[in-house]
Amino acid sequence: MAELSVIGQRVPRVDAWEKVTGQAKYAADYSLPDMLWCKLLRSPYPHARILNIDTSKAKKLPGVRGIVTGKDFGGWSWGWMPATRDETPLAVDKVRYMAEAVAGVAAVDEDTAEQAAGLIKVEYEELPGVFDPEEAMKDGAPKVHDYVKNNISVEYHWNFGDVDKAFAESHIVREDRFRTARATHGYLEPPAILAYYDPTGYITVWASKQSPYFHYRHLAACFKVPLSRVRVIQPFIGGGFGGTKNDSLAGDFCAVLLSKMTGRPVKYIESMEEELATSRRRHSVIVYSKMGVTKDGLLKAIQHRVVADGGGYTAIGPLSMYLNGFMTTLPYKLPHFKFDAYRVFTNNPIGAAMRGHGVTHTRFAAEIQMEMLAEELGIDPVEMRMRNAIDNPKPGEIYETINKVTLKTCGLKQAIKEAVEDPLWRDRDKLPKKEGAISWGTGISGSSYSGGARQMGHQACAAIIRLCEDGTVNLITGATDCGQGSDTVLCMIAAEELGIKLDDVAIKRVDTAYTPVDPGSYGSRVTILAGQATQKAAREVKKQLLETAAANWQVKPEDIEIRLGEVFVKSDPEKKMPFIRLARIACYSGTGAVIMGTGYSSYGIEHLDLTNGIGNGGCSYSFTAHTARVGVDMETGQITTTDFTIASDCGRLLSPVQAEGQIEGGAIQGLGQALYEDFIMDRGKTLNPTFLDYKMPHALDVPNIKLIDIVTDDPFGPFGAKETSEGSIVSAPPAVVSAIHDATGIWFKELPVTPEKVVKALKEKK
Amino acid sequence: MAELSVIGQRVPRVDAWEKVTGQAKYAADYSLPDMLWCKLLRSPYPHARILNIDTSKAKKLPGVRGIVTGKDFGGWSWGWMPATRDETPLAVDKVRYMAEAVAGVAAVDEDTAEQAAGLIKVEYEELPGVFDPEEAMKDGAPKVHDYVKNNISVEYHWNFGDVDKAFAESHIVREDRFRTARATHGYLEPPAILAYYDPTGYITVWASKQSPYFHYRHLAACFKVPLSRVRVIQPFIGGGFGGTKNDSLAGDFCAVLLSKMTGRPVKYIESMEEELATSRRRHSVIVYSKMGVTKDGLLKAIQHRVVADGGGYTAIGPLSMYLNGFMTTLPYKLPHFKFDAYRVFTNNPIGAAMRGHGVTHTRFAAEIQMEMLAEELGIDPVEMRMRNAIDNPKPGEIYETINKVTLKTCGLKQAIKEAVEDPLWRDRDKLPKKEGAISWGTGISGSSYSGGARQMGHQACAAIIRLCEDGTVNLITGATDCGQGSDTVLCMIAAEELGIKLDDVAIKRVDTAYTPVDPGSYGSRVTILAGQATQKAAREVKKQLLETAAANWQVKPEDIEIRLGEVFVKSDPEKKMPFIRLARIACYSGTGAVIMGTGYSSYGIEHLDLTNGIGNGGCSYSFTAHTARVGVDMETGQITTTDFTIASDCGRLLSPVQAEGQIEGGAIQGLGQALYEDFIMDRGKTLNPTFLDYKMPHALDVPNIKLIDIVTDDPFGPFGAKETSEGSIVSAPPAVVSAIHDATGIWFKELPVTPEKVVKALKEKK
Repeated sequence: MAELSVIGQRVPRVDAWEKVTGQAKYAADYSLPDMLWCKLLRSPYPHARILNIDTSKAKKLPGVRGIVTGKDFGGWSWGWMPATRDETPLAVDKVRYMAEAVAGVAAVDEDTAEQAAGLIKVEYEELPGVFDPEEAMKDGAPKVHDYVKNNISVEYHWNFGDVDKAFAESHIVREDRFRTARATHGYLEPPAILAYYDPTGYITVWASKQSPYFHYRHLAACFKVPLSRVRVIQPFIGGGFGGTKNDSLAGDFCAVLLSKMTGRPVKYIESMEEELATSRRRHSVIVYSKMGVTKDGLLKAIQHRVVADGGGYTAIGPLSMYLNGFMTTLPYKLPHFKFDAYRVFTNNPIGAAMRGHGVTHTRFAAEIQMEMLAEELGIDPVEMRMRNAIDNPKPGEIYETINKVTLKTCGLKQAIKEAVEDPLWRDRDKLPKKEGAISWGTGISGSSYSGGARQMGHQACAAIIRLCEDGTVNLITGATDCGQGSDTVLCMIAAEELGIKLDDVAIKRVDTAYTPVDPGSYGSRVTILAGQATQKAAREVKKQLLETAAANWQVKPEDIEIRLGEVFVKSDPEKKMPFIRLARIACYSGTGAVIMGTGYSSYGIEHLDLTNGIGNGGCSYSFTAHTARVGVDMETGQITTTDFTIASDCGRLLSPVQAEGQIEGGAIQGLGQALYEDFIMDRGKTLNPTFLDYKMPHALDVPNIKLIDIVTDDPFGPFGAKETSEGSIVSAPPAVVSAIHDATGIWFKELPVTPEKVVKALKEKK
Repeated sequence: MAELSVIGQRVPRVDAWEKVTGQAKYAADYSLPDMLWCKLLRSPYPHARILNIDTSKAKKLPGVRGIVTGKDFGGWSWGWMPATRDETPLAVDKVRYMAEAVAGVAAVDEDTAEQAAGLIKVEYEELPGVFDPEEAMKDGAPKVHDYVKNNISVEYHWNFGDVDKAFAESHIVREDRFRTARATHGYLEPPAILAYYDPTGYITVWASKQSPYFHYRHLAACFKVPLSRVRVIQPFIGGGFGGTKNDSLAGDFCAVLLSKMTGRPVKYIESMEEELATSRRRHSVIVYSKMGVTKDGLLKAIQHRVVADGGGYTAIGPLSMYLNGFMTTLPYKLPHFKFDAYRVFTNNPIGAAMRGHGVTHTRFAAEIQMEMLAEELGIDPVEMRMRNAIDNPKPGEIYETINKVTLKTCGLKQAIKEAVEDPLWRDRDKLPKKEGAISWGTGISGSSYSGGARQMGHQACAAIIRLCEDGTVNLITGATDCGQGSDTVLCMIAAEELGIKLDDVAIKRVDTAYTPVDPGSYGSRVTILAGQATQKAAREVKKQLLETAAANWQVKPEDIEIRLGEVFVKSDPEKKMPFIRLARIACYSGTGAVIMGTGYSSYGIEHLDLTNGIGNGGCSYSFTAHTARVGVDMETGQITTTDFTIASDCGRLLSPVQAEGQIEGGAIQGLGQALYEDFIMDRGKTLNPTFLDYKMPHALDVPNIKLIDIVTDDPFGPFGAKETSEGSIVSAPPAVVSAIHDATGIWFKELPVTPEKVVKALKEKK
């Protein structure tokens, strides 16, 4: 790789100043003159037929300007695939989860809107509910939707190789049942929207969306408006992580429809309690894992039967279930793999995507089960992993899994090697194992995650770079920075490619009236794919500039280099000029020129069979080795995590400060899901819908984190980048649970490992 | 030309609904939270030295948040050329015209800002002023600027052919002095700006600008901010016509600086009285015209000496003077031409651009003088024009004037022919010549105007077309619709070229963070040049779609046609699909594609020597023949204009409804300048700075207008378009003055021809 000037530098984010000074404006900060406020009425039942809605009293309340109910949306429904469009903006005939929205009110202020919502009288016929996915699959269970049998929302059945034969040939076969928790995304910004349906038929919204073009499609479809007339203007986004902001909400649709009805702008802000009680959350997944190994600990086969609590609607469930399966063949060599997945409707809130989407469940199961097998075989867990780890393909070579996932780089072995050379692991036996009631343990895990996720449909990213005659540029893209810092990375890519300084690149946020269509911010795709588009757009601008410079100096374009704002002839350094001068020459040449470049991402044309789990679900794959040290209070069950060492092969870190933040953030979020985070449910009701009761790691819970960067220059990603934010959320729970086992001798198979569970298990063990 | 489906249709404007319902938002309609209001303090003298500014009392007024004076801008000045940067945001050492701004205040509300401005104490030393340009040129006249001699702001001296010899050989030579008025643009929306200089160093303004990228450059230069961080967001614009909205204003700069100082958004709205008293206006020009003709009435030579009242600063004056001259060789064959132009500084408000820029003065002089010569020679004025009119070049041929202006089409002869076949002219002798005190007359004129003006610097337009997967498109361009309807025309061009319906094209206004750089809306350039860019962008999208369709049907792309949303194989009409389906196939092909097209305008590489008046100042030229009937009350001098017939060669009218509106609007504005409009000045003070006292034509003053469309498909413009809005403002005054002569026997040489002037002249004649 050529010498880099901007990429790899430790620079502040391009939006740092706005965020640090509180100047950054989020959706809830936007207002328009004559604006109305929207509030929703929600169901008090998890499963009930709606018999009648009487809005007459609410309508009479002074200040009320409009009321909508489910029927006002004319039967429109949405979902991830045509066959799964089972969700309506508001419940129509029945409600399927607790606090599902049934009506929306627009009034002159928030209090009036709330009061009016309370005056709407809904007559319900309560129906028996079903809250456990395994119960829901049984014949005779209450039906959440009529359109499927046994409440099965999504199912996949894959069979690669011959697992039965492989298990028969295995030295040991284990079968265990694992379960992951109902985690929430935990962003601090609640969903919000300011909507204006103008009389010319344009819908304009300022909406908190991590994938604004999903929302744009939903609004166009719901309101039968051309896509070109749906304008989603993106404010700053206070975190997404794949949750509600990756989809559309009752409040979004109601705000737009109420704006259409009233001719006035309408604002909706979801309260954090509404958000936590009702919004999309990570599926709680039961994983029945069967694993067979040889005497030497080599993996022979994995069979997974997963049952996910889908809640009331399908949402992005088909993708979740796919992701539960397709990466099980990574990061270890696996010759036989069988996967039976069931996403099951229940009367719980909807299960959907979250950072580490799908893989967190099955990788947790597989890592812990592999450790158990290593223990049974008496093989060191590091050695067990090294024996099974996929090797780094030689340059130009490709490793292919049994389900045709292909790798061009794999730094797992190197990551394990470097992680265990770190004192945290290397010197673990020198550290005390016991201090008073505290028992100490060290654990390890491995993981992999795909970068540049592929979904159905309109998948490419594009970028436009507009050269200003002062040598600075505007980067225009539909890609979304929902807090992860991708705007900074894209600006760095543009600056590096053009040979200018980072400060010379300006970027503003998505506005679908101007920015190219983009899939959005999910599946660790922005740096890789919007980055690729940005790189190509910059190359197109650079090409035009090099031609101008070449004509000016009478040399060939390829003889000229541009670096950090200086243009020069490589072989004749006397011939040089500042970039700004070259920009001027180019812009003012002839009768004046507009210099722009456009770039488009490309996946190539590889076949992906999502239904059968065959092919690449991403462009490239990260690999992580993760060690953890925990202290378990053997009396109270309290667990303290003191250290993480995370060795990550994320290709190349383009913006190390942010990539490290992502790796650390993912690991901390994973720690939360290992030890603290879960929605406590009682017959469909979320009992802890506040950040006081839903426990996430606080600053004091965060361990010392040491990061080790394993560089594999991936040939697909721009400047070698792979994903950076999802590997460590996958690796953290098994590393922590492995360490808890080391401390307690107990294998925990259900997340989170709370003090109650620890105390109970310790008692049972005695 | 192929059959057209959208172009040439009589369709409503794309912004009709917003404007008709009052929903369209103009700059003054925008607000931001915590916004301050800005007011300016203006000079009570037309020429004075500023000795001291004491802001202490104003600063103490509760609610005042910031005050700026000229020195706060650090000496920055701007102008049309580097050598003419003689204007500062606020006056620094001296004021050069009455009510020039000297200080700006930001306060919590408008009243407080106004009150505070009144509390600023400025100590002036009044200086002798000069208010007449011919006086100002004399030695010893008060000097407005020290950097020039004799107050000459701009001068040009061109000499094509040999006028002296030509005059010597002429049968008759006339010399006359003409003078045009100080007209204002008369838009109803006052200039306004909402400015926010954010802490990250971006300047964002919602500003009423017809050329937003001029303003963007001014702000970047003044505040030393990269162009890429200046965001001019364009609201709807309530008329421009080349006035203040084509430049930057004291209020603009003050709002931005005050926002920078206070960290808060600042709004400035200029009052209509401030606007009319101080803003840029059409130059009042004295034209000394010498014209020689043969016995047969053939033009031998024209010599023009023009003296323009430039007011206090240069502004766009160099271009104004160039435009006074270069089109004098149109629309009649002219073998010899001499031009001496003087733009002169005075202590009047600044002279600048206005619709019909430059040409209105000299064409008025030349048309009337030609009529006088026809009268002397006893030649019919129509015959006189037909003998001299430039012929329509044959296809592929070019007519070149003596100053190397080239025409590929010229419909003047056809226009004259059709205008005089119209009953208004043909039957003029059948109509009463006298009715009571009213004497009736009919007049005629010819004119030409350039379309697609060229200026210095960054001249190209660009367009991006983004295809949505529902077959609709977003058109993204930096071009400005300041009220003329160009957004509709650009959308029509995109629709026609793509083969879709006008409703399927969406356009939003300029936002310099997203839209390509564009010169702006002046010189009748938008339809021609932004239209060309739009056409090319659409072709690029269409090319991609045709390739997709061709692959789908296994035919060649050129065998496929798209028309009004239907795609079909020309030779096999069974093979067809709706455009939306083709869009879907293209967008979802492979792993998904972003379909965009970019297009750039191009002038070719013709040399333009502005200083010497050589070459094309535009891309193509319109031609107009204009007849008028007026009734003159021989007692009161009151003139009633009853009819206009205007035969215009505007190439092809792309959107006839709007083109006709432009032709009519120009003619009515020209009527105002012929009969009513003038700023009455008293030693630098504008005595009629309100629309009550500054008289423009009212609805009842507007004659019946008949338009005749002369189609010459211009090879340069998209679909044959040339300019449509400036020819008729040039042709109206001479047509009206010719008719007044027919009614009264008097030749009026100074505009406007007010009742007072008529009565005086009639008395003198007796």
